[in-house]
Parts: sequence; structure tokens; C-alpha cells
Amino acid sequence: MGCPALLLLLLPLLAPEATSAVRPAPTVLGNRLHLPTSPTSRPAAAQNYSVLYFHQKVDHFGFNTVKTFKQRYLISDKYWKEHGGSILFYTGNEGDIIWFCNNTGFMWDVAEELKAMLVFAEHRYYGESLPFGEDSFKDSQNLNFLTSEQALADFAELIKHLKKTIPGAENQPVIAIGGSYGGMLAAWFRMKYPHLVVGALAASAPIWQFEDLVPCGLFMKIVTEDFRKSNSNCSESIRRSWAAIDRLASTSSGLRGLSQMLRLCSPLTSEDIERLKDWITETWVNLAMVDYPYESNFLQPLPAWPIKVVCQFLNNPDVSDSLMLENIFQALNVYYNYSGQVKCLNMSEIATSSLGSQGWSYQACTEMVMPFCSNGVDDMFEPQQWNLKKFSDDCFSQWHVRPRPSWITTMYGGKNISSHTNIVFSNGDLDPWSGGGVTKDISDTLVAVIIPQGAHHLDLRANNAYDPKALLLARSLEVKYMKQWIRDFYKPSRRRH
Amino acid sequence: MGCPALLLLLLPLLAPEATSAVRPAPTVLGNRLHLPTSPTSRPAAAQNYSVLYFHQKVDHFGFNTVKTFKQRYLISDKYWKEHGGSILFYTGNEGDIIWFCNNTGFMWDVAEELKAMLVFAEHRYYGESLPFGEDSFKDSQNLNFLTSEQALADFAELIKHLKKTIPGAENQPVIAIGGSYGGMLAAWFRMKYPHLVVGALAASAPIWQFEDLVPCGLFMKIVTEDFRKSNSNCSESIRRSWAAIDRLASTSSGLRGLSQMLRLCSPLTSEDIERLKDWITETWVNLAMVDYPYESNFLQPLPAWPIKVVCQFLNNPDVSDSLMLENIFQALNVYYNYSGQVKCLNMSEIATSSLGSQGWSYQACTEMVMPFCSNGVDDMFEPQQWNLKKFSDDCFSQWHVRPRPSWITTMYGGKNISSHTNIVFSNGDLDPWSGGGVTKDISDTLVAVIIPQGAHHLDLRANNAYDPKALLLARSLEVKYMKQWIRDFYKPSRRRH
Repeated sequence: MGCPALLLLLLPLLAPEATSAVRPAPTVLGNRLHLPTSPTSRPAAAQNYSVLYFHQKVDHFGFNTVKTFKQRYLISDKYWKEHGGSILFYTGNEGDIIWFCNNTGFMWDVAEELKAMLVFAEHRYYGESLPFGEDSFKDSQNLNFLTSEQALADFAELIKHLKKTIPGAENQPVIAIGGSYGGMLAAWFRMKYPHLVVGALAASAPIWQFEDLVPCGLFMKIVTEDFRKSNSNCSESIRRSWAAIDRLASTSSGLRGLSQMLRLCSPLTSEDIERLKDWITETWVNLAMVDYPYESNFLQPLPAWPIKVVCQFLNNPDVSDSLMLENIFQALNVYYNYSGQVKCLNMSEIATSSLGSQGWSYQACTEMVMPFCSNGVDDMFEPQQWNLKKFSDDCFSQWHVRPRPSWITTMYGGKNISSHTNIVFSNGDLDPWSGGGVTKDISDTLVAVIIPQGAHHLDLRANNAYDPKALLLARSLEVKYMKQWIRDFYKPSRRRH
Repeated sequence: MGCPALLLLLLPLLAPEATSAVRPAPTVLGNRLHLPTSPTSRPAAAQNYSVLYFHQKVDHFGFNTVKTFKQRYLISDKYWKEHGGSILFYTGNEGDIIWFCNNTGFMWDVAEELKAMLVFAEHRYYGESLPFGEDSFKDSQNLNFLTSEQALADFAELIKHLKKTIPGAENQPVIAIGGSYGGMLAAWFRMKYPHLVVGALAASAPIWQFEDLVPCGLFMKIVTEDFRKSNSNCSESIRRSWAAIDRLASTSSGLRGLSQMLRLCSPLTSEDIERLKDWITETWVNLAMVDYPYESNFLQPLPAWPIKVVCQFLNNPDVSDSLMLENIFQALNVYYNYSGQVKCLNMSEIATSSLGSQGWSYQACTEMVMPFCSNGVDDMFEPQQWNLKKFSDDCFSQWHVRPRPSWITTMYGGKNISSHTNIVFSNGDLDPWSGGGVTKDISDTLVAVIIPQGAHHLDLRANNAYDPKALLLARSLEVKYMKQWIRDFYKPSRRRH
């Protein structure tokens, strides 16, 4: 999800309307200008691609409209070999494809070994691939073609187009690769179009974060665990911070103090308190997702092991409310102001603007209905039940659509997927999304790769000197499977699959 | 297809507009009233079902409309066992589901052995399952939801509904069964929803009758072969009949004579000649499809081995044009007047009205683009090339849509389907549709069953004393596979698939 917590979690915790209110304002921080991105997170090679466009049908599943739109995709053939080569196909998720390309160094790192052409396909309704241009999010009529099925069909048509038009590509194996929602798409693409891809690497893909396939509280429990592991006082501080906020917010002087302690750009009113708590919650969730072992800039520029850094400020839960909030500020400041350039904290700011919050809000309100909850006991958050009725009503008032919470399971099989083959599901054990992921082998060819100390699709990031050994092992296992699929494809007696 | 030749072949041979003009007028013949249907073709048990309705979303793939419609389905639990039982699910094709139910005696015959509940699901836009009632075919907007993908999603939702609402059904294996287009749907259903059906019996399913997966002339070649095998003078007579018709039609007295020789209800004009030839062509094609070894009433009431009967009248190709057309009449009369009640032949009459010619015409103009051709050398028909441009233009003027000839291959994999499992493809070698079918094993679990002397999905018909031994063998093989899938499902260590 790139930053799915932002996009997904706002929905269960806030009303869907709130989501579109949360428009990242990256110019406020402009960190990317000031802080050099870790060079390994954007490998030099990743610059070396062509930007191309393919005319896609707006509706693959109906014939009433003949409208098309331009899907953007990136392609690099630097290491590609016409003979014995392969095609690694990134199944783009909810954001700008160039941003995903720059954050998927793994593909660049393995391209030579796999003699691979790299293709990064942008997901419709994100980045530049807007079926109705700037009107794409105008109403539910224009949004009607934003579904995972349409996105998979785009990928299928694009692969057929590439195979038809690039000499030598026709008889090559294609492997789908994606992370987060893109990982779900990679897995689903292999399930639904096994004739087009020989296998899929689904990194941090919570394909079971639907209905009651996993407990709704698991996600927040893992977030909590990440903070607790750093320092049990840290999670306890956060657990107690909510009541401290409430107490301070109960008087007007306390409210003023709260705004000052947190260096907020706009002073709080008592109506803002729920939004404040949601914003802080999102921040902890995002930190859990990007708790990488080295300095990075995925959702925000951050130091190595950012939770450790954050928790240095939260090592004593037994403090006054004021001190607690001062500490919370210091912690938030790690996330929002690693550059040191920021003058005040902005509650509308959570993560990179490369993600498409409007599109994802709509998807979460239609197909991608992921139940989340917290109980304050197994996790450090305020208790919050999953309320489908309220969620649905909020979706209706925001988008004039209602979610179909069972559809993804009906379409993609839920836990009953053992008849499929050649999918690697990788998950980092720090990643809250691993709770909805496949973390045990389902069969010999549907395998789980666990990355100890790994956050959200760490394996898809570029090689880095600080990569833990377990990560290197996981990546080599992934490459081993990919090579196996490629070998099987080229076997003289092969039955393609 | 049920009678797909009628519906499909009209399209390549005629313009799509002609299709909707061809509305069967069964009351003219009313044969079913006079001729007793062979009792075995409608087993007594087939009467014993409930007719039910399920509210389906009109659009499974978009959220802009919340409209639903009532899908009809039939259900029989006479032989069903809650413990160790199974569910046989007929994936309805382009017609009235009761008609298919009555013509799928095989399911009734094996129900007891498999402890099976029988479900027959009607395909949207056919029978009573009309998303927009009598306006369903009004325009391309209302027809927009008539696709195989929507139909498969209907089946998926219905199965989930049945499992949720029928006590004991939840943990039972479901097997998809279908014939002709319904066989394609059964196979595709297993490919796309393997979590919902443990396997599929796809009888006479021409899943490869698309693009250039098989030669476009194969279909007509098999039709010709069926007549030639009966008597080589028979196919030769038909081959020569076209020129005889042209010669007669070239003068006004000849034209009058032609109408009289053929006992046509309405006298021919010279503009009717192409339509006449198409109508006769359809008749030979339909005879090839229903060349069953016993008296039956599928598309029309017919004697046993009807091609043999027809060919008795076509045993001398060296006759005058008039005698040739008299013979052709005798042959047609077998097909259109087995009852002996018909006073004249009606060119608008080809087969049962239980088939939905409008719906299929639209489907052929959108997804189900099946190239057909003839060359007059390998077959007994007038040469006719496959002309996609003309076909597309005709579709546009008829339905305001244009076909997407590659889509089915993109969606369902064409010949590249070996990664799937548990599908039995059965084909009779007399059946012209076998040319587009899977007639060789693809893997251990994607198997072909050939029925020597078998016409269109003969295996799905009820047991009959005249069934050839090879057919009994084929059916027992099919049952063997189905039992295997059921056993695998119930295995304690099973991995469901």
C-alpha cells in the first residue's frame, strides 16, 4: 500500500470523508529537497528507463463505452537478453509509478542476474494514468472503473502488447512483482492470469486482511509490539497519552497548551481532538511500516530504525500530562522533521504525496474493505470496534457507493487458494500488514518467506550495506524461486504455467 | 450454444442483423405437442426440482449501480446427502434453464451415485433471468452487463449463497458441469474460481474456437465429414446444390419452381437467395450437432441418426437441378417435419425457441468472436472467408458495439492453460464443435474424453438404451474423475482445490 496505513487506516478510524481532507502538503516540508535521499533507496540504475504510454480500454468488462486512456509504464532493457531472458513486471499500486520504481531497487539489483527486462506498470487512477483526467474522482460514475479487476486486465493487455511489439519478448517468461496492495495484485494476477505470468513475488501483501480471515485487531497489535520491543515504556507511554490528551483538551487553557506542546501549525479546537488522535495514531502505524534498518525516505525522510529513535523520547510513562505531550511531540518530530527544517507540525501531513489518497479511499469504500479494530489491551491504542454499518454510511456520504465486504473473498478465494502455484509471499515480522499476509507455506509452490526484523516490503528495496543477514537470505530465496520458474519455462518439455 | 450453430454460425455467414430476424416460430410446427419426446431425454426425475430466484447485482465489476435482478435457478436434493455428499452445479448457457435441465439427464442419472444436490443456474439475459426485464435487449447500455465474466460472478455469488443458507452444504465439494457455451463456462469457472469448484466437466466446449487457435474451416469440415461418412454422394449432392439453386434462381420461373420444390411458406424473391442458402446451411450444421443415435428432441424432434435418414434422399449428385432441389426438400423435411404435421417450410424456423438468439447475437458481437470459414474443397459449402472488418461493421449497425476478438484469449488463456487442474473436456467426434475443443490431454488433471460416434454433448443426455458402448465408457470415465475430485476434497489431509 505504499502508505496503506495512511490510506487504509484512516478509513476504519476516521470517516472516509476525512481521508480526502488529508491531502499531503509536501511543499510545507519539502524534505526531499533538503535531505539527500539515501542513494541506495533510489539506485542509480533506476534512472535509466523509458516512460511510455499504452492505450487501455476504460472498461474491460463492458462494451458500451469505447473510451480509452493512456496508462503510463516504465521500461528498462539495460540487462535484458533476448535469448534466455525474462521480464519482471511490477504490478503498480496506489501511487505514482515513478515513485514505486524508485523504491523498488530489488528489481534493478536482480535484473542482470535474471537477464531481465524491467517493466513498471502504473495502476489506473493513480499518477498520470487517469481515465478521466482531472475529473477522474469527480463522481461515482467516473470512478466506476477503479477496481482491482480492471487493473489486472490492464496489466494483461499491457503484457500482451509488449510481447507483440518487442522483438524477442514473445517467448519469454514474465514474473509479476509487487509490494503491499501491489503485492496483492501480483498474487491475484498469477491466480487469475497464470497464462501470462509464470509466477509472482507478492511482498507484504495482506491478501487476508478481509472479512474475518484474520482478527481485526492483529494489525494494531503488531504495531504495538514493534514499539514495545524497542522499549516497553514506549508502548505504555503511547497507551497513556490518549487520556492525557483528553484531560488537557477538557479545558481551554489545556487545549492551548496542547497546541503549543505539539507545535501545531494551527491551534486546536475541541472538535479537532479526534482528528488529532487519529493523526498521531497514523504516525505510529507508519513508523511501524517503515522501521527500516537504515536511513531512508519512503513515506518521510527518516533515520535508521526510526522506532528506536522515537522511543528514546518515550521512555517514561509516569510523567505529568504536559511532559507526556512534550515527549509525544519529540517523537512525532522524528517522523515529521528529520530534516530539522520544519517550523510547525501540520495535521494534514502524513506521508508522501506520491500516493493517491483519493483513489485509495474509493477503493477502500468499494472492494478493499479491510476491517481494523483495537482494544487498548492487546494494543496501545484507544478501543475502537470495527463498525461496518458506520463505515458503509460514511462511504456513501463520501463517494455515493457502498462497500461489498465479501467480494474480494468471492473473487480471489480468501484462504482457499491452494490450487494455485508459483507465488512467493514475503513478509517482514515488524510489518503490521504481515498480520493479513500469508506467513506459512500453503504448498510446495505457494511459499511464505519471513524476514526477521523486516518492515513493510523491505525486501523490495535496493541493496544496502545495513541490510540484515536474514534479509539477504530472504532475497536469495526469492531469486531462487524466480530462477526456478524461468528454468521451468525454458525446459524443452515444458508445459507452460 | 445449445444450438450454437444456429446462433453462432449465422453471424459469420450472415450479418448479425439477420440473427435477430431469425426468430424461431415453434407454434408453426408445434411438434412437441404431437410427437412424444423420447422419455429418456427428459428423465422423470428432472421434473422433481424447485424453481428459485436469487438477487444478483447487475454489475459485479462496478459500484456505480446498485441495481439487482432475479436470477432463476433450479434445485433438486432428492439424492443429496448432507454427509459425504456433493453439489453438481450446471453453469447455464444461452437459453431457458428449464430446457437445459430437461436435456441434461446425465446429472439426474449420476445424482444418486454421487449423493449429489443438483443445481441449474440460469445465465443472465436468458430465460427469465433478465436484468432489465423486457428492455434487456433494448440498447447497448442495457446489454452492457451481458458478459461471460458477469455470468461467472453470478455463479460464484450463487454458490456462496447456497453454501451459506443450506445447512450441510457449506463443507461440500461443488463440481461445475456444462455443455457447449455452458461447458466453456464450466471450464472457465474452474480456472477463475478454483476455490469454489473442485473440478469441471466441460462437455463439447469449444474454448479454442477463437482467434487463430484452430483453423477457421475446421468446423465446416467436420460437418461435411459427418455427411460424407454417411454416404459420400450425400456431401457431394449438398456441395452441388448451391449452384443448382443459383441456376434456378436466375430466372423468375426457376425462382417460382424453387419455392414450390422446397414447399416454402412464402415464395422466394431473388433477394432471398443468400438467406435461403444460409438457412439450408444452418440446417446441415444443426443436423451434425444433433446426430444422436436415438430419436430425440433437442433442437427439433428428429429420428435416430438423422444424418443417415437425410442422406437417403441425397444419394445421387448427378441429377437435374429440379430433382436435386426435390431431394434437398426431402432432406430438409426430415429436420423440419419429422412430425409430419407441417404444411410448409418456414425459413425463419431453425430450432427451439428455448434458446436466446438475441442474447447470443450480442455475445458473439462482443466477447464470443468465433471465426468461421469454408472453402468448398475441404467442405461441402460455398467458399466464405472470415471477414472481421465486415463482421465488426455488422455488429456495430446491429448492436452499436464492436467485437474484441482477442479478449477471450487474454482473459481465459487460449491454449496456454496447463497450470489449471481438474477439468474434463469431453467431445464427440461427430460434433463440429469438437474442432474448437480440447481433444488431447493437457496434463494428468486436464483431460480429454473422446466419444466416438458422439454428437454435441451427447454425454450430458440421459441414459438411453441405444447409447453406444463408447458413450457408456466415456460417462463412466467422467464419473470416475468426479469421484476422485470429491474424494480429494474429503481427504483428511486435503488441501482444498
